[in-house]
Amino acid sequence: MNQEKQKIVIVGGVAGGASVAARARRLAEDAEIIMLERGPDVSFANCGLPYHVGGEIEDRDALAVQTPAKLKALLNLDVRTGSEVVNVQPAEKSVTVRTLEGEYELSYDKLVLAPGASPLRPPLAGIDDARVLTLRNLQDMDRLIDHVAQLDHVTIIGAGFIGLEVAEQLVHIGKKVTVVELQEQVLPLLDGEMTKGIEETMLANGVELILGDGIASFDPQANELVVKLNSGKEVRTELALLSIGVRPESELAANAGLELGPRGHIRVNDYMQTSDANIYAVGDVIESANPLSADAAGSDAYNAVPLGGPANRQGRTAADHIVLGEKAQAYPGTIGTAIVRVFDQAAGITGLSEKRLSQLGVDFKSVLVHADHHAGYYPGAERLTVKIMWDPESGRLLGGEAYGKEGVDKRLDVLATALRGKLTIDDLTHLELAYAPPFGSAKDPVNIAGFAAGNVMAGHVKTLASIPTDESVQIVDVRPAAMAAARPVANAINIPMVELRSRLGELDVNRPVATICVIGKTSYMAARVLSQNGFDAASIMGGVTQAL
Amino acid sequence: MNQEKQKIVIVGGVAGGASVAARARRLAEDAEIIMLERGPDVSFANCGLPYHVGGEIEDRDALAVQTPAKLKALLNLDVRTGSEVVNVQPAEKSVTVRTLEGEYELSYDKLVLAPGASPLRPPLAGIDDARVLTLRNLQDMDRLIDHVAQLDHVTIIGAGFIGLEVAEQLVHIGKKVTVVELQEQVLPLLDGEMTKGIEETMLANGVELILGDGIASFDPQANELVVKLNSGKEVRTELALLSIGVRPESELAANAGLELGPRGHIRVNDYMQTSDANIYAVGDVIESANPLSADAAGSDAYNAVPLGGPANRQGRTAADHIVLGEKAQAYPGTIGTAIVRVFDQAAGITGLSEKRLSQLGVDFKSVLVHADHHAGYYPGAERLTVKIMWDPESGRLLGGEAYGKEGVDKRLDVLATALRGKLTIDDLTHLELAYAPPFGSAKDPVNIAGFAAGNVMAGHVKTLASIPTDESVQIVDVRPAAMAAARPVANAINIPMVELRSRLGELDVNRPVATICVIGKTSYMAARVLSQNGFDAASIMGGVTQAL
Repeated sequence: MNQEKQKIVIVGGVAGGASVAARARRLAEDAEIIMLERGPDVSFANCGLPYHVGGEIEDRDALAVQTPAKLKALLNLDVRTGSEVVNVQPAEKSVTVRTLEGEYELSYDKLVLAPGASPLRPPLAGIDDARVLTLRNLQDMDRLIDHVAQLDHVTIIGAGFIGLEVAEQLVHIGKKVTVVELQEQVLPLLDGEMTKGIEETMLANGVELILGDGIASFDPQANELVVKLNSGKEVRTELALLSIGVRPESELAANAGLELGPRGHIRVNDYMQTSDANIYAVGDVIESANPLSADAAGSDAYNAVPLGGPANRQGRTAADHIVLGEKAQAYPGTIGTAIVRVFDQAAGITGLSEKRLSQLGVDFKSVLVHADHHAGYYPGAERLTVKIMWDPESGRLLGGEAYGKEGVDKRLDVLATALRGKLTIDDLTHLELAYAPPFGSAKDPVNIAGFAAGNVMAGHVKTLASIPTDESVQIVDVRPAAMAAARPVANAINIPMVELRSRLGELDVNRPVATICVIGKTSYMAARVLSQNGFDAASIMGGVTQAL
Repeated sequence: MNQEKQKIVIVGGVAGGASVAARARRLAEDAEIIMLERGPDVSFANCGLPYHVGGEIEDRDALAVQTPAKLKALLNLDVRTGSEVVNVQPAEKSVTVRTLEGEYELSYDKLVLAPGASPLRPPLAGIDDARVLTLRNLQDMDRLIDHVAQLDHVTIIGAGFIGLEVAEQLVHIGKKVTVVELQEQVLPLLDGEMTKGIEETMLANGVELILGDGIASFDPQANELVVKLNSGKEVRTELALLSIGVRPESELAANAGLELGPRGHIRVNDYMQTSDANIYAVGDVIESANPLSADAAGSDAYNAVPLGGPANRQGRTAADHIVLGEKAQAYPGTIGTAIVRVFDQAAGITGLSEKRLSQLGVDFKSVLVHADHHAGYYPGAERLTVKIMWDPESGRLLGGEAYGKEGVDKRLDVLATALRGKLTIDDLTHLELAYAPPFGSAKDPVNIAGFAAGNVMAGHVKTLASIPTDESVQIVDVRPAAMAAARPVANAINIPMVELRSRLGELDVNRPVATICVIGKTSYMAARVLSQNGFDAASIMGGVTQAL
């Protein structure tokens, strides 16, 4: 073990940087650990910022997890806030630190760059108006809270995770909210059909959603801010919050000659070392190997996932490598698990989406299923939607997505664990998950997704992602008659499942059939009956729940 | 694909049997499928029975999931209730069916035995009194509900999952409840320290708990039932519910000469075939290979897990093998995942417990950690306790247990998935679980358990499962002074963590030190400081939360 006294300098004191410092101290009591933070706060809970805007987290101090004094007392860290590193001199193993009092040089044995990322601010007309805000730190949050206190209407630019969290919180405190998103869906990381629940709950909660439209410019007026969209549409608002993504703060690294990726992220190896072995980097500023796309596509194996969980674990890896050397465990890469709650709905993803797989040119198959989040006979069962993607060759799971009111996080975690274990769709059918009526079902939605995938692979059923528009296809609605009448499927013949076997004569065996039901389960049974009676039959995935 | 018309006879129409029938029909539209059920009901939700007793599931019909008529209409099944199979003639491939109208022979191509298990009723004096009940089916439930309506005090014999569920429900409807358990803990499947939360909530909700005492006899009186315990103690009650386990209903199989295991379960292969290739068995009546104990111990690789989830998947496997032959997937065995909710607490297990591993003579290590179920700064964070067991040679996870108010099911599911994927403790540290403040933490309790295990394996920390009683050990309580004073640890010196580095001189470097804090996290940090300063230091796992 390499525990001689080392001088470790860390640039950035939030998730990744703070993790490096804490772990390094636990491993090396005598190391000199200096943490330099440009801003006034270290180790604050940036994932909690939106929740204080709406008062859901009442106490601002709850977000300020640590102070320099506490970190000194607890971990013997030398924490210097208001200290910006303006240059790195790799050859001298030193950094230049700028404070209000002036600049000084600080030498290091090992340097860790954890400066994070900053919100994107495209060079649009009017974007420098004081009413165009971003949300990244406590000061941004304070500014947003101050502003919204005296106004009615806020426009959120970008319907990603943070944008939607803030939108919800603003509704909670009585604001009118418009969300503008360039893509034709909210949560662009997810596949479009998996954002249905989120979009519905936003509309139901009075949020105005403008999809498929981008920002052309801001036109600041005395009493309002006019947001001009690419379509020509104008949104008259009082405040705009930009949440269209982040860019890595990698200028220091670039100036130091460290290798960067195509979008400016610092490239690191499995131990978080940059192209200079004495300089590590962790958190939102880096991109790291994605084991899923590496295995599936061979190329494009790097990804940047600006989230707290990976930052923490990268920090731990870097500290281990600094102190323990080759005894450290390699970082296995980031697969990209993310979740968001928006009003009464949650949605999330782990691994590769269908659209990402298509971009990568990877061969894959997918299914979408609806199922109750716990036993249907126990009160409070809520419908949950799960989609999985897999490699048709090996059966290996490549990604999963879920949405619904309850239990979304649990299924994402199961799928994330399955991805880490390289499990196949067959393995999913056999997962033995915790079942008692308040918690799950004898057949969990993840098992059911595995069953559905297995049926596709075995050729037991053909599936359709939507209602076919080809008129040669006979659409058979197998729901009970009353249900079919109440919310009809256009151009469908209603033959309830319980009558199907006796009414096969009503269908033309020479024309393809597409079956549809409420959630895609009975339609699968119907497709089985039809195909075994000589029909070319396919089941519409997700039923009318998804298709109507 | 072997889809010629087959005659499939299924004995038993609840979880396992019903799954065989439904899957077989979907695969083989033209098969003749006959389901024989001794009782009046098929496919009822037996896991829901306790919840109707307390009215949490209001509608009894919610538990009667299917009827013979519905199964006929939907799946073209020939369901015969009130039909008991009294003999199997394997040579003739036929069974003898007894009904109220008489007996008849029924031939089969494939027979599936899914008769389930029945509650244990040991031959004790007084056990046949009408006030000694069991709970296994809808009729038992109706009887229990009828009885308890007019009485005040019920004694539950056996503190397993069903016993505790019923205890809670009876409290909800205003009954006084005593629970008697032979072991020194509730939930004997779990390790003792993992039932702390459940026992505390039971006591807080007014349940009388008698642990470490068994039933000697029942003494029925006119107005009361006296339950006599092995200790000599007597419990004066009005009704006793026996829930001390089940025995497989394998008489038919035994009489047919099928191979049974040591405790009377039917032995099956990976496709649910018994020792007669034309006879399958699924559900509570069987024992199947346990992949964990098989790998870890080599021997004792069979286990019986009488739960609905495995029964369903075994049924699916049997149907696949009957219809598809060798194209069917093998059943990968049952690892034994189970959970129970008792009042505001949940507890559960997946894989092998510490006590089971000890019985098997397997070398293992374990850690126990406490952590918040979601971000501590987000309102409503509840403490969750996770214990993991692993193979110190390979690092492979062998089992996990959890308890707490929230999020127990999720962590068990993650651990169950990790077990299926043969993940190691290092893999647990790198699980990328869904994190947003309402759902989790940047470091999930499962990650933290992995970190703790890794620290043990790397020799970074020695741990103790309880407060040492050896007087030569210096116990150092590193909590803040006020906290230590409010709930002191006997014989401990209080040195708050923030003062530890400056007060090392107060400790004798020649005597071992055990550190303790609230949950075991700060005590780990303290042990690191001490050991790096030459002390023989160990951290007490779980802190005072577990130890006091």
